[in-house]
Amino acid sequence: MSSFEQTLKSDIDLVNEALDKYLQVTDSDYGKVIEAMRYSVMNAGKRIRPVLTMEFCRLNGGNKKGALACACAVEMIHCSSLIHDDLPCMDDDDLRRGKPSCHKAFDEATALLAGDALILKACEVIALSDTKKSVATKAIGILSSLAGTEGMIGGQVIDLASEGKKIDADTLSKMHSLKTSALIRSACCMGAVCADADEENVKNASEYGEYLGLAFQVIDDILDVVGDEKQLGKPIGSDEQNDKTTYVSLFGLESAHKKAEQYTNKALSILDKYEGSEFLKELTKTLLKRNK
Amino acid sequence: MSSFEQTLKSDIDLVNEALDKYLQVTDSDYGKVIEAMRYSVMNAGKRIRPVLTMEFCRLNGGNKKGALACACAVEMIHCSSLIHDDLPCMDDDDLRRGKPSCHKAFDEATALLAGDALILKACEVIALSDTKKSVATKAIGILSSLAGTEGMIGGQVIDLASEGKKIDADTLSKMHSLKTSALIRSACCMGAVCADADEENVKNASEYGEYLGLAFQVIDDILDVVGDEKQLGKPIGSDEQNDKTTYVSLFGLESAHKKAEQYTNKALSILDKYEGSEFLKELTKTLLKRNK
Repeated sequence: MSSFEQTLKSDIDLVNEALDKYLQVTDSDYGKVIEAMRYSVMNAGKRIRPVLTMEFCRLNGGNKKGALACACAVEMIHCSSLIHDDLPCMDDDDLRRGKPSCHKAFDEATALLAGDALILKACEVIALSDTKKSVATKAIGILSSLAGTEGMIGGQVIDLASEGKKIDADTLSKMHSLKTSALIRSACCMGAVCADADEENVKNASEYGEYLGLAFQVIDDILDVVGDEKQLGKPIGSDEQNDKTTYVSLFGLESAHKKAEQYTNKALSILDKYEGSEFLKELTKTLLKRNK
Repeated sequence: MSSFEQTLKSDIDLVNEALDKYLQVTDSDYGKVIEAMRYSVMNAGKRIRPVLTMEFCRLNGGNKKGALACACAVEMIHCSSLIHDDLPCMDDDDLRRGKPSCHKAFDEATALLAGDALILKACEVIALSDTKKSVATKAIGILSSLAGTEGMIGGQVIDLASEGKKIDADTLSKMHSLKTSALIRSACCMGAVCADADEENVKNASEYGEYLGLAFQVIDDILDVVGDEKQLGKPIGSDEQNDKTTYVSLFGLESAHKKAEQYTNKALSILDKYEGSEFLKELTKTLLKRNK
């Protein structure tokens, strides 16, 4: 295992262990909803957001473990959005990472409540952690605003409104920035905040997250056209089927690849400002080449 | 207007004004979800929870306005739960307070996202308020845990699991304690915490909320049998129709009335410990006599 793979594995192990502790079934009368939360959270996701939180903490001179509560919180918000996105009234997806989506494995009401409970749990774990109070409030402020209407949820609303109609490049870019980058930005910024970083370093974290998120979303669009269904764990071609405007539908595959590379390079150039950013650079490049 | 009515009106006015400020449409691209949040929040609800937050702050020697962010937060969580409760996969209610429920006035996806966004906004307004950081984290911890799986959501899960089957008095009581009392407890405890109250006073706030919540729920059960549909803004008889176990179905109307009075008296006895609790006593009694 390379040193990069080792660090990635040790970060992910830390996150998985903490998530497992946060999501324990304590009472059988309402255990079902916690089982549904666990089903969606403990499913071997890529854990990109929590890894970013921990690594941006380290990059700014902090201790990774001190950012663990925030790292788990952003992953919980992410998983909540996936559960709710899959519901029949949203994308109506039966599969998620090759397994039945939460409302298929349980039922719609339980999936709805599991998503709600994950949002609350995210704020709870930060608030009740031993993170310094001034850092915890800052982190909760960042996470809740960038996941909310001015961030991820705002992007989902634009996404819903865009279904079945052509949108222009600016709207598409705004949608991606809100829907995908905002939460990734929150992950990076919370990490920096956990290390008591100053405004400039938090801004760097935010910009890195913005570019990485945009690259991430363009690659998602590409994989929906040329991806391997088995690797992805979901059917491809859904964007075209739903008549969705994507980077690929607007500019073609080749331009989309170039765009993803441009965004990735912009993210990398921010990391150039930091010593000890080799791991994050490798992670950034790996995400450009991902096939799932 | 009596002095009680004046205080109640001024508390409610404060809350409504603050909620209005927190929920401004800032961007027309995703304004629809904020409109949906406003539709459900700015609807002349009884505002019991936020009033309790402000009054428990005052009762413990604090300034009401210092608890306004927490007061609005608990109301947002409450409204979020109503929006999600009304969805087809939950109670499937078309009416809420005499108006089309959120997913009827908008659509299911928007209602789902509006509920999610209200949970996030609740944590955001506390985190970004000028509340002391140690108080803000404590308040977010209280609100998110008592609204989550170990509180309100846990109660909703038991409620769903109980549909169409007889449950015993203990399970019913546990369900009411979680589903209704937990959030009311959070309202009272946050108020006390905003006044830097010590453990004993926070415990008093919690116990008061527990009893008031139980009384509140028994009265809800009674109104579902004998209430006036116009006053309630929703059809009565839904519990019986859904074959739901309620205090009334288990013990009859007369016992239910007595039970509500007992709980109310227990709540009042806690207020006896405080000087200046006349307003809260009056509110507690008023809720026992409510017809909507």
